[in-house]
Amino acid sequence: MTTRQLIADEAELWHAATHHPFLDAVRDGTLDPAAFSRLLVQDYHFALALTSAEGRYLAHAPRGDLEILAEGIQAMVAELAWFERKAAERGIDLAAPLHPTARAYVDYLQATTFEPYAVQLTALWALERAYLEGWRTALPGAAAYREYVEHWTNPSFAARVEALEAAANRVLADAGEPERDAFRWIARYERDFWQMAYTGRDG
Amino acid sequence: MTTRQLIADEAELWHAATHHPFLDAVRDGTLDPAAFSRLLVQDYHFALALTSAEGRYLAHAPRGDLEILAEGIQAMVAELAWFERKAAERGIDLAAPLHPTARAYVDYLQATTFEPYAVQLTALWALERAYLEGWRTALPGAAAYREYVEHWTNPSFAARVEALEAAANRVLADAGEPERDAFRWIARYERDFWQMAYTGRDG
Amino acid sequence: MTTRQLIADEAELWHAATHHPFLDAVRDGTLDPAAFSRLLVQDYHFALALTSAEGRYLAHAPRGDLEILAEGIQAMVAELAWFERKAAERGIDLAAPLHPTARAYVDYLQATTFEPYAVQLTALWALERAYLEGWRTALPGAAAYREYVEHWTNPSFAARVEALEAAANRVLADAGEPERDAFRWIARYERDFWQMAYTGRDG
Amino acid sequence: MTTRQLIADEAELWHAATHHPFLDAVRDGTLDPAAFSRLLVQDYHFALALTSAEGRYLAHAPRGDLEILAEGIQAMVAELAWFERKAAERGIDLAAPLHPTARAYVDYLQATTFEPYAVQLTALWALERAYLEGWRTALPGAAAYREYVEHWTNPSFAARVEALEAAANRVLADAGEPERDAFRWIARYERDFWQMAYTGRDG
Repeated sequence: MTTRQLIADEAELWHAATHHPFLDAVRDGTLDPAAFSRLLVQDYHFALALTSAEGRYLAHAPRGDLEILAEGIQAMVAELAWFERKAAERGIDLAAPLHPTARAYVDYLQATTFEPYAVQLTALWALERAYLEGWRTALPGAAAYREYVEHWTNPSFAARVEALEAAANRVLADAGEPERDAFRWIARYERDFWQMAYTGRDG
Repeated sequence: MTTRQLIADEAELWHAATHHPFLDAVRDGTLDPAAFSRLLVQDYHFALALTSAEGRYLAHAPRGDLEILAEGIQAMVAELAWFERKAAERGIDLAAPLHPTARAYVDYLQATTFEPYAVQLTALWALERAYLEGWRTALPGAAAYREYVEHWTNPSFAARVEALEAAANRVLADAGEPERDAFRWIARYERDFWQMAYTGRDG
Repeated sequence: MTTRQLIADEAELWHAATHHPFLDAVRDGTLDPAAFSRLLVQDYHFALALTSAEGRYLAHAPRGDLEILAEGIQAMVAELAWFERKAAERGIDLAAPLHPTARAYVDYLQATTFEPYAVQLTALWALERAYLEGWRTALPGAAAYREYVEHWTNPSFAARVEALEAAANRVLADAGEPERDAFRWIARYERDFWQMAYTGRDG
Repeated sequence: MTTRQLIADEAELWHAATHHPFLDAVRDGTLDPAAFSRLLVQDYHFALALTSAEGRYLAHAPRGDLEILAEGIQAMVAELAWFERKAAERGIDLAAPLHPTARAYVDYLQATTFEPYAVQLTALWALERAYLEGWRTALPGAAAYREYVEHWTNPSFAARVEALEAAANRVLADAGEPERDAFRWIARYERDFWQMAYTGRDG
């Protein structure tokens, strides 16, 4: 199995994970600012949970993947500080409660920490790649959101996704249904996350 | 409780953790090269375990400590690569078995991952500080070992120990016996580790 | 805080967690057998996850709660065997995929294994009590479902819920928002679970 | 690999794990009562840690092993209560500190909770079997210790060891060095534990 095959096999679900009216509205500038704030708050919660999950992934990763995982953790911690600066600029309270859709995704991440490493790495690659691909559909971004779109599509993030993809392909060589299943859940939760940010509603 | 008090209260044990004939012999050049190789191999095992433990510490650390922990993980991963280069230069096999004394220490580290965060941070600070202090007693180091002594006392490591000390003092303000106990065990295991490297024997 | 207060403070949510058209239809015999099969399959997945979570709760429980937790684990393992017998009788495949609503609940349980013990015990009590109360509203149960309703309201289960309630009240004496939050999420997921079983749909 | 082969391959180490002057002195009545008290205290610490480890083993055990693991947890919790009764009868303080030899063993157990299930089950079987075999060498036990020897060789414990052996043989069919390694460490720690109880000294 390869990352390419996973995406090809689940083309429809992957498309839904990476294309959404939310992203279109970021591109054309029609997005309700309240929706954007909602995304920031819930994405911050997600980033905290991902940092934590990455700590546990690293704790039983093979020697060869420690560098990419340590870089990922560093990048996430820098991302948290960036979220905090942006929230302060926009007057947003990041302590707002976790939305049920975000909770389901965050708890799924925590649950993967009990899964085999190949499942964890597949999930990590899939979620980072979906995020990058999604934001790329919003390029160049309307003026109000341009710096965000640029931040979430910047070359160093893209390079990290590529490195994760190479690592994921190494574990996927011997992988099977559990990894495919993780890929599907990540795609599903990415899609739900955009929808939650867009509408404020669950499901 | 403060880091200073812990060290003062356990002065004898702390001295034993940070002063040893092994370190004296590194300084004066009389160390048996086999003992130095033994240290490198067992310390590499330890570094792998510490990287893993730090991943789990970070997974439930408070927001304010994520930076110092992420930097610690980065530093440990760089340290692993450094060990591997040095081992290659010296023709040492890093896959040699874990010594019982090192196993006890390594397993203690793993066991701390189930302890409260204040205990974890106390242990992490104590082990890094003991290592730094110990190697400082070997300065400037005999020619054969100088680059190692300089590596293990370098200013960026010293700065990291200071940052850990500040973080440890924040959690120690409300701490009690479990943190003191962790400090004692770390000091004891540091002492045993030098002894194991020096003699090759257990206990 | 007490278990009684939690239920009183969240009366509406608790009512939704313990009363549902699904249960009414079990009582009056109008329930679609496909809905009942769906409940059995998803509840079996849930029971597997709860057994696992209870293992981790026990792993850091205080000495005084080990008996009640060990009994809970024994009871869950017996419950799994009972589910398997009933599924065989009814020709149901228990390996059917986890429904998204059940996945969110199951992952929440796994996520609680990283929370403090007081949160875990509050969640465990709340979910067992909601289940007992819910099934009691279906008593005596239409003929087709009577043995199930009797099984899920039997006196030994009720005694276990009471013992959990006593243990929960001990930890709730010093508890606060995280425990209240866990109570709310459990109530919400219990409500969603009946709804999922009833309609087959998410959310 | 089979349990029988493991024992045969490591005959000398296994003999040391299951035969000791401590046990001989229990049989002939010459054991220093202080040594027996030391065993009780340290074994109680060990039993607490084993109960905790078994909770985590169960948390990711395959369905087919849940019964034997749940029974093991129940048995350990009953054993803890038995230790507490005996300690009260003998006026022993079970809160006495963990001995370094016991700490190393206890931490090894905790560390196995991060290992694959096959390693965990091998360790669990090996430690229970060594304990049973060891106490059998002390049969019938001098009058002062007879009830203890009978307790630790009773038929229900023996039956549990047999059930664990059958489960271990299922996982060992596909096992290799990590499982053999776990077997060796358990044997080593069992030997060290008797020695620690006998002499009060480390190593």
